[in-house]
Amino acid sequence: MASNSFGKLLTLTSFGESHGAAIGGILDGMPAGIDYDPEELKRLMQRRRPGQSAVTTSRNEKDEVVILSGVNNGKTNGFPIGFMIPNEDAKPKDYSDLKQLFRPSHADYTYREKYGIDPQSGGGRSSARETAVWVAAGYFANLLLQEKSIKVIAYVNSIGNLSLGDDFDLEKLTATPENIVRCPDDVLAMKMEEEILLAKKEGDSLGGTIGCVIFNCPTGLGDPIFEKLHAELGKAILTINACKGFEYGSGFGGTKLRGSQHNDEFFTDDDGTIKTSTNNSGGIQGGISNGMTIYFKAAFKPTSTLLKSQQTVDLKGKAAEMKAKGRHDPCVLPRAVPVVEAISSLVIADFLLRNGKIE
Amino acid sequence: MASNSFGKLLTLTSFGESHGAAIGGILDGMPAGIDYDPEELKRLMQRRRPGQSAVTTSRNEKDEVVILSGVNNGKTNGFPIGFMIPNEDAKPKDYSDLKQLFRPSHADYTYREKYGIDPQSGGGRSSARETAVWVAAGYFANLLLQEKSIKVIAYVNSIGNLSLGDDFDLEKLTATPENIVRCPDDVLAMKMEEEILLAKKEGDSLGGTIGCVIFNCPTGLGDPIFEKLHAELGKAILTINACKGFEYGSGFGGTKLRGSQHNDEFFTDDDGTIKTSTNNSGGIQGGISNGMTIYFKAAFKPTSTLLKSQQTVDLKGKAAEMKAKGRHDPCVLPRAVPVVEAISSLVIADFLLRNGKIE
Amino acid sequence: MASNSFGKLLTLTSFGESHGAAIGGILDGMPAGIDYDPEELKRLMQRRRPGQSAVTTSRNEKDEVVILSGVNNGKTNGFPIGFMIPNEDAKPKDYSDLKQLFRPSHADYTYREKYGIDPQSGGGRSSARETAVWVAAGYFANLLLQEKSIKVIAYVNSIGNLSLGDDFDLEKLTATPENIVRCPDDVLAMKMEEEILLAKKEGDSLGGTIGCVIFNCPTGLGDPIFEKLHAELGKAILTINACKGFEYGSGFGGTKLRGSQHNDEFFTDDDGTIKTSTNNSGGIQGGISNGMTIYFKAAFKPTSTLLKSQQTVDLKGKAAEMKAKGRHDPCVLPRAVPVVEAISSLVIADFLLRNGKIE
Amino acid sequence: MASNSFGKLLTLTSFGESHGAAIGGILDGMPAGIDYDPEELKRLMQRRRPGQSAVTTSRNEKDEVVILSGVNNGKTNGFPIGFMIPNEDAKPKDYSDLKQLFRPSHADYTYREKYGIDPQSGGGRSSARETAVWVAAGYFANLLLQEKSIKVIAYVNSIGNLSLGDDFDLEKLTATPENIVRCPDDVLAMKMEEEILLAKKEGDSLGGTIGCVIFNCPTGLGDPIFEKLHAELGKAILTINACKGFEYGSGFGGTKLRGSQHNDEFFTDDDGTIKTSTNNSGGIQGGISNGMTIYFKAAFKPTSTLLKSQQTVDLKGKAAEMKAKGRHDPCVLPRAVPVVEAISSLVIADFLLRNGKIE
Repeated sequence: MASNSFGKLLTLTSFGESHGAAIGGILDGMPAGIDYDPEELKRLMQRRRPGQSAVTTSRNEKDEVVILSGVNNGKTNGFPIGFMIPNEDAKPKDYSDLKQLFRPSHADYTYREKYGIDPQSGGGRSSARETAVWVAAGYFANLLLQEKSIKVIAYVNSIGNLSLGDDFDLEKLTATPENIVRCPDDVLAMKMEEEILLAKKEGDSLGGTIGCVIFNCPTGLGDPIFEKLHAELGKAILTINACKGFEYGSGFGGTKLRGSQHNDEFFTDDDGTIKTSTNNSGGIQGGISNGMTIYFKAAFKPTSTLLKSQQTVDLKGKAAEMKAKGRHDPCVLPRAVPVVEAISSLVIADFLLRNGKIE
Repeated sequence: MASNSFGKLLTLTSFGESHGAAIGGILDGMPAGIDYDPEELKRLMQRRRPGQSAVTTSRNEKDEVVILSGVNNGKTNGFPIGFMIPNEDAKPKDYSDLKQLFRPSHADYTYREKYGIDPQSGGGRSSARETAVWVAAGYFANLLLQEKSIKVIAYVNSIGNLSLGDDFDLEKLTATPENIVRCPDDVLAMKMEEEILLAKKEGDSLGGTIGCVIFNCPTGLGDPIFEKLHAELGKAILTINACKGFEYGSGFGGTKLRGSQHNDEFFTDDDGTIKTSTNNSGGIQGGISNGMTIYFKAAFKPTSTLLKSQQTVDLKGKAAEMKAKGRHDPCVLPRAVPVVEAISSLVIADFLLRNGKIE
Repeated sequence: MASNSFGKLLTLTSFGESHGAAIGGILDGMPAGIDYDPEELKRLMQRRRPGQSAVTTSRNEKDEVVILSGVNNGKTNGFPIGFMIPNEDAKPKDYSDLKQLFRPSHADYTYREKYGIDPQSGGGRSSARETAVWVAAGYFANLLLQEKSIKVIAYVNSIGNLSLGDDFDLEKLTATPENIVRCPDDVLAMKMEEEILLAKKEGDSLGGTIGCVIFNCPTGLGDPIFEKLHAELGKAILTINACKGFEYGSGFGGTKLRGSQHNDEFFTDDDGTIKTSTNNSGGIQGGISNGMTIYFKAAFKPTSTLLKSQQTVDLKGKAAEMKAKGRHDPCVLPRAVPVVEAISSLVIADFLLRNGKIE
Repeated sequence: MASNSFGKLLTLTSFGESHGAAIGGILDGMPAGIDYDPEELKRLMQRRRPGQSAVTTSRNEKDEVVILSGVNNGKTNGFPIGFMIPNEDAKPKDYSDLKQLFRPSHADYTYREKYGIDPQSGGGRSSARETAVWVAAGYFANLLLQEKSIKVIAYVNSIGNLSLGDDFDLEKLTATPENIVRCPDDVLAMKMEEEILLAKKEGDSLGGTIGCVIFNCPTGLGDPIFEKLHAELGKAILTINACKGFEYGSGFGGTKLRGSQHNDEFFTDDDGTIKTSTNNSGGIQGGISNGMTIYFKAAFKPTSTLLKSQQTVDLKGKAAEMKAKGRHDPCVLPRAVPVVEAISSLVIADFLLRNGKIE
């Protein structure tokens, strides 16, 4: 219980169910005096919003964030930021046929086991609609990063078998990709879009991987032993709906190298800054940032909701066939990109506060 | 700061530096009346102990756990278990040459940046010697799992390019492998051993992956939203020294499947238990255990300490060459197996308490 | 930072400023399936509401609680209860003259020192309006107490020099007093009312003490060492605006007794229950409830806002005279009674969950 | 469970039972580079040590603190300070007669109800021996206060009916009183000593009050809403064994004043510092320090262990008479003075870290 809070000195506590009155949260720990730009927040929310393109669900939510406290005259005031996002286009009726069935690879069965409640229309608390709250909170967290010129950029790295590949140069990223798939290679992005539309047409879904880089992170973020920077980032990313894996730096691929190939040798650059000539460490050594670019990848499974027939059981355990109606994403990755950025910003901002880099 | 604690209702707080008087910890939250078997604890410690075989470091520590409180007449008494493990074979002199150099891919540089301290002999607080404390605490945590017949088994899945492969049947595992590499395939284990000894001879090191299965976990463990079972397991595993990645269930590989291939369909078995016909979910759906076998993999980089020459810089940033002496593991994976089991046991035991499965 | 949360397994996180759009909170940790009665919540809010009688401020707030999540079909659903209370009768203009002055014994000066912000109109975050959020959350917490037949009753024990006296029999209390002062002795209550109205007429204010009893608390609530039941109750009560002291059981008076007078001897009653013949322990021994009635007292200072002239300094430290206008309570105690009950209910409910008494 | 930790960024976790091998703790969060003086720690431990004078128990413990980690070359190194204090003069046999009886006003009964364990010899975990750990940790915490010239001085204010009285001038205190009662008035201290020895002779015990002042605390310590400075101090003080009440500033006495008498008017002193002409606020306004002297009082009940006959029940609830043997304090207050200082230092040091006053 009491598991709806995230972060230590910058803490997001969230509430809300997909088909209730509103979702929202309280972001506690923001320092006073930070400029707040409602237009920029709107723009960010837009990037996660459902119904934004042909490859996302057609549920139409404005995702308007109503700020209730913590902001005065366009600046944070040091007090908790309370906010809510009304639910406007809930259609619980789409789910009425499914109330008696456990949807495969959804949380219906585990929630029933844990809370004794029947499969909720639209997912209830387990719905990825929750991530709208994270994006709103991440906007504020990112304001702290901007004060330190830290930049967080996520992007789609692969969809199914279509991938950027290992020689993609992270250091060239300058902004979140703007195409609808959010892959930094526009040609590949178009192929991915085709694949997604094909899967959608067949009532099927696709997974993939999202990459994320954090530029300009100061040295010293992260705490030994149990609050290492990469462990907190990993936990945060694994918290995102549909995420099945996390790796940073050389990750799983690096396990095939020898130490002499993998070690990052130190050198001093022309400005007198100590750097490493390679970056298999992914910007983190011993759980603490070393000033190099932080980068990691996350695995997202194909969306569980399919518009094709599947086998399952009903509440009494009797075999049944189901086929979802409703509005769903054939591939969550494009919309997950801003979520990865938001929750990463929350982690980094928390460490900026914990490690005395702010104020 | 204050980051040396782990867990919520079952909390391990640790202390100690590799070359100080002792390491140790306090395990808080153990229920009263659980049988304690010092011989079994000794046996477990032995499995992580340095100097146990040709593929591990020759540092010779008995790793004897001295229990100071929390146990009376062979049973836990409900109060915190305070314990220490004396350091006996510390040889700080081996490191005296290295005091002026940042060892590549170690925490020397980041600790200097964070704490303003020079590279410690033998790693100080960042040393993997800390994991002996986790194994001791994990022993107690595992006693709670035993009460529920939950079994945690870790094993070496791959070393460098030598791997068990995808068709290895997890369900056949019955105990932690006993060969010195701790790979469940004895033939493969011998090949891995050869590879490690070859790397050792060359002063080089190897990485690999460790797999872990958790059998018989009840449904309902894990808490939405921010304390999902797999996110807490992921954080725990990423906390282990040298770990670079974590994936559960279908993981990164599953991102290439379509939803119709990936979804785990429900059925009711002959005993009336609801199960899934496949287990791409890895026993966890919506962050909560579903009663199927939990399984995950972790990536470990090749050991950073090499006995061959490397480029680095000294404390003033001047280029320097270094070559470690000292006693080190050419491959950490065999000794990391009991650490993975220990920290997984701590996570599961904490959730048993949090989710009301104990008492 | 991040100090706007209260409780461990039942956690209230609050937001809101007295003169902003709304105040509100998230109550996390409520079990599923508890009946929710909006009329009862309304009735409770009414008891704390400003403008309810001649002895309270004339600020007129409906204090309507809007539930945004966590409740379905009249029952809690196990998910966080998000709620807000709109501010409707804010009159920041009353405070415009005071913006340049530090009000004596208010938080104006300390908030300026801490946050660098000027005295807020109406107190901003430091206003006692916050306690409306606690009463709303306390309503839900108290539902858990009702499941265990635990009853929390607070009452005004003294106003200025008018006091119930030491021989008042706590065990006779059956409900929160209904007179406007909330003192269980109706004759004394009328005298208190007169005193308050007299102070009000003179632009002055009064303090006093509130007593609280908790009937029928099971044995075993509270945790050694650092989360003793009375220490958590004390912290909670001291958190209430204007509270200056807390004592439980024999309290300060008991320090004048000898051990032989003070000790509570055990006996077994006719039902076989072990009880104590006296109750100087106040129902708590070694930080853990012993099954006897829990009781404590809290000291509340006279309201700081006066409608008479006082000396102070302006923002630049220059001496100034001030005289508040606006709407204020000449004595906070009657309205603090439901607040004491609410926050005590939150503490007890948290311990019911922590100590495995619920589910 | 897991309630053996105290503090947020500076966290003490403790272990140990009065009659086990050792007690001890881990202090996590101390910054690096603070000078450590083992002689000063010894001197402090001496002040709490049993057997130090005629008015304390004759149990003879050296209370030697063995530092296991966190200190190098006479300085803290930023890592957790692990320490233990061996138990040397435990005499469990003194308690063997009492194993079947619940001692009145002790924790025997509540621990049995909670943990299902029989009354422990010598109190087990509930013994005030635990406070030796706090004094050791408080030594380190106080080093941070010294960096800011903050001084914490506690003293015995009253024993039974013998009291310093209200006109005692706190501002004149310069050090912890050195007489064996630790009352700053030497004449009164001798009377108190006589009273204690008289009670001791009769096998009885006395209670009293301890006062504490904190000089030179910077403005801005303490966090609204739920971590107010006085609420955290109150919780800490109420955590001390035998403590029954806490009041700060004007406390319970102040409830009899009118607002116009009680309010602390602001003025600017010759150095341009804003101060208050009175200090009924006790140095804390709105939960945040205002730069004036912080002061509070704590009530301690008479020691529960008496060497005279008392009525109680045995484990089966049968009436029984008991008379303690063993070694006990006839009055805990003199030894509680350094405990009050230690735990107050822990609270203030934690807030110095939380509120960015250190580093």
